[in-house]
Amino acid sequence: MGKSGSNYEPLTVETISKRLGDIKAVTDRLGTDTGSWKAKEVGDGNLNLVFIVESDKSSVIVKQALPYVRLVGDSWPLPLTRAFFENHALTRQAKRDPGSVPEVYYFDEEQALIVMEFLTPHVILRHLLMAGKKHPTLAKTMGEFCARTLFRGSDLSMKTADKKADVALFAGNVELCDITENLVFSDPYFDAEMNRHTSPQLDDIVARLRADIDLKVEVQHLKSAFCSNTETMLHGDLHTGSIMVSDDEAKVIDPEFVLYGPMGLDIGMLLANFWMAYFAQPGHIDDAERRDDYQEWILSVVEEIWSVFCDEFSRLWRTERTGILYEKTLYEDQGHMLASEQALGHRLNAIWQDSLGFAGIEMHRRILGLAHIAENETIKDEDLRADCEARSLEMGRQLVVNRTRFTGMEAVHELARIISREKTR
Amino acid sequence: MGKSGSNYEPLTVETISKRLGDIKAVTDRLGTDTGSWKAKEVGDGNLNLVFIVESDKSSVIVKQALPYVRLVGDSWPLPLTRAFFENHALTRQAKRDPGSVPEVYYFDEEQALIVMEFLTPHVILRHLLMAGKKHPTLAKTMGEFCARTLFRGSDLSMKTADKKADVALFAGNVELCDITENLVFSDPYFDAEMNRHTSPQLDDIVARLRADIDLKVEVQHLKSAFCSNTETMLHGDLHTGSIMVSDDEAKVIDPEFVLYGPMGLDIGMLLANFWMAYFAQPGHIDDAERRDDYQEWILSVVEEIWSVFCDEFSRLWRTERTGILYEKTLYEDQGHMLASEQALGHRLNAIWQDSLGFAGIEMHRRILGLAHIAENETIKDEDLRADCEARSLEMGRQLVVNRTRFTGMEAVHELARIISREKTR
Repeated sequence: MGKSGSNYEPLTVETISKRLGDIKAVTDRLGTDTGSWKAKEVGDGNLNLVFIVESDKSSVIVKQALPYVRLVGDSWPLPLTRAFFENHALTRQAKRDPGSVPEVYYFDEEQALIVMEFLTPHVILRHLLMAGKKHPTLAKTMGEFCARTLFRGSDLSMKTADKKADVALFAGNVELCDITENLVFSDPYFDAEMNRHTSPQLDDIVARLRADIDLKVEVQHLKSAFCSNTETMLHGDLHTGSIMVSDDEAKVIDPEFVLYGPMGLDIGMLLANFWMAYFAQPGHIDDAERRDDYQEWILSVVEEIWSVFCDEFSRLWRTERTGILYEKTLYEDQGHMLASEQALGHRLNAIWQDSLGFAGIEMHRRILGLAHIAENETIKDEDLRADCEARSLEMGRQLVVNRTRFTGMEAVHELARIISREKTR
Repeated sequence: MGKSGSNYEPLTVETISKRLGDIKAVTDRLGTDTGSWKAKEVGDGNLNLVFIVESDKSSVIVKQALPYVRLVGDSWPLPLTRAFFENHALTRQAKRDPGSVPEVYYFDEEQALIVMEFLTPHVILRHLLMAGKKHPTLAKTMGEFCARTLFRGSDLSMKTADKKADVALFAGNVELCDITENLVFSDPYFDAEMNRHTSPQLDDIVARLRADIDLKVEVQHLKSAFCSNTETMLHGDLHTGSIMVSDDEAKVIDPEFVLYGPMGLDIGMLLANFWMAYFAQPGHIDDAERRDDYQEWILSVVEEIWSVFCDEFSRLWRTERTGILYEKTLYEDQGHMLASEQALGHRLNAIWQDSLGFAGIEMHRRILGLAHIAENETIKDEDLRADCEARSLEMGRQLVVNRTRFTGMEAVHELARIISREKTR
């Protein structure tokens, strides 16, 4: 981990073939005729350099960290070690849910670069949702991904010495956690420098939320869980821009915000991004019938993600509970199968409540904070956009403050439909 | 940390003067005339070697880890690194609550030894309680110790990078945590090999507790918090044998079980040991009036520890909240002082509930598990001892299962008095 950077040099389209041409893991895929390789830079511009390198044999993605936030420039330094953490996250996710993430071919710690599988013809899930397209296997894949990575990265499954070693390892990802701690959990709730909201039409509701004591207390309780509840290894930034889909599969990318944190975080962020897509549809589909249909499809995806998550988590609980918590020695081996089931129910309920809380915060920070989402940003009509954003803000507030009081997803979605029908500004 | 042990050699009374005679931090206290030093071994026999080394000028304690559990022998290896963690804990506790722990003069990682202040004429608090003696400042000191170390070791106070580094550091104390994870949170609740209880008179209640599904589920929830809630740096073994008292002061020793864990653990273990002392009094004081008086004094100590803890924690919350949680920027600076107070109330309530839960578990493991307490062990009459222990077991069960439902310490102590009056077997 100390090695990142001493001879670090950013790749360019011109240098990349030469610099990777000696690496067997790369030439195994692209062949040794580096002169025929074609490279293009496709980074979406936030943090890193991303190249597609192709030969007539195959293609790879090369992702290299920059020592600063690309979006902002070198005034916002960001350590190269995030590539180290991303590599460790990817290899663990691949083990815990095989096929769920791009395969890593090669990692160079000093150059902070990862060579990995080029997912093609995949597109970013967020773009699919903005185009009003459906996907058949997305919900199942994501529910399973969350269940498997959360369960298998925790003390429910791992040897405790391995888990403690990973807690220590990922505790080093300080600067990326710091971004989440500030931009997600604090800035949106006061008039912070980097905040923006898209139009003055939101001023009233923004002022109301920032004066809402109950909201601001609950958000900090959730921030406290983020900072201290090292339950499992999380992706840390699981929004619909971190998922790539082809017609029949979905893959999770970009886990550089990896941390040991509370189980509800990944699910909560993920569901929030579907709910925001739901509320943004009036800005994307004019036809009421088609819009209703697509909105209901989005809600059905959320329902399925949660129910697949519960089913798969329960299956793992019953079949793979090899860690030091809720040991079979204490339960099943004593004939107390019901103790095991009772504990499982409690844990799912705790994850449920946390997920709703984190979802609400994600919905706030994407509208009140620095990083917004394309679903809202691309709505040109200011009033319409403000309506969509205001509904997400109201929903978020309900989720945070009342997260312990929803009887299930049906109740959450009933609320979403009500908010969607009402004018909220 | 890797250094422990390569040239490690246990000290003896014969070798200790020679081996410490070149260390300035030691000769500064004892002088250089090592021939006149007197050493005696005073380890109470559980884990470590402990020596008092005296000269005509002064005296020091030398504590050296052994590579195994002294009580059991080399069939139970235990890493020397625990001295490393104890040293780090002691130096942090000394900063966070000055004067609360013995001063460390010298630490040798390779030899796993700490030279520290010899507390004299102090005695172990547990012995004081067994002798039916009162103490004037104990409660205040312990309430403040808990508040200051818990608050100042957390994200409420520390820079988050420092806190994450310490979480990573202490995550290495795997083997000592493993002892707690097994002996405290699991073994007592099934028929584990190392368990014992002191008489067949307890068989019925032991069987009842081990068949109690609600109890066994709640205990594992608390174990999960122990394993994953890295809120603050804990002593990790804060019982009345880890506290030394003179007439007018109390000091905390032996933090080798140090971990980042949930705030309620230290307080809970501490209160549990007072409550067990309370229930053990029929075995120690025959005179009813004197016994009542002493038992009520014990309860008053518990009340004062908790109220001092709350007062001091609240004071720190209001004056030293410099961490990344519940930031003043979000609350006081926005004129929302009530948000800050509301959040404080919630946090104290969470610590309260956790403390009761951990207390209940401590009361169980000291009677059902491997390590018992002298208050009970020294009661010769088997029926009387079983009565005392059964009452602690009942109390423990109530604390674990109903920990969210006590309205305050008065309610807890009303329950203690009721259990103390009833025959419970």
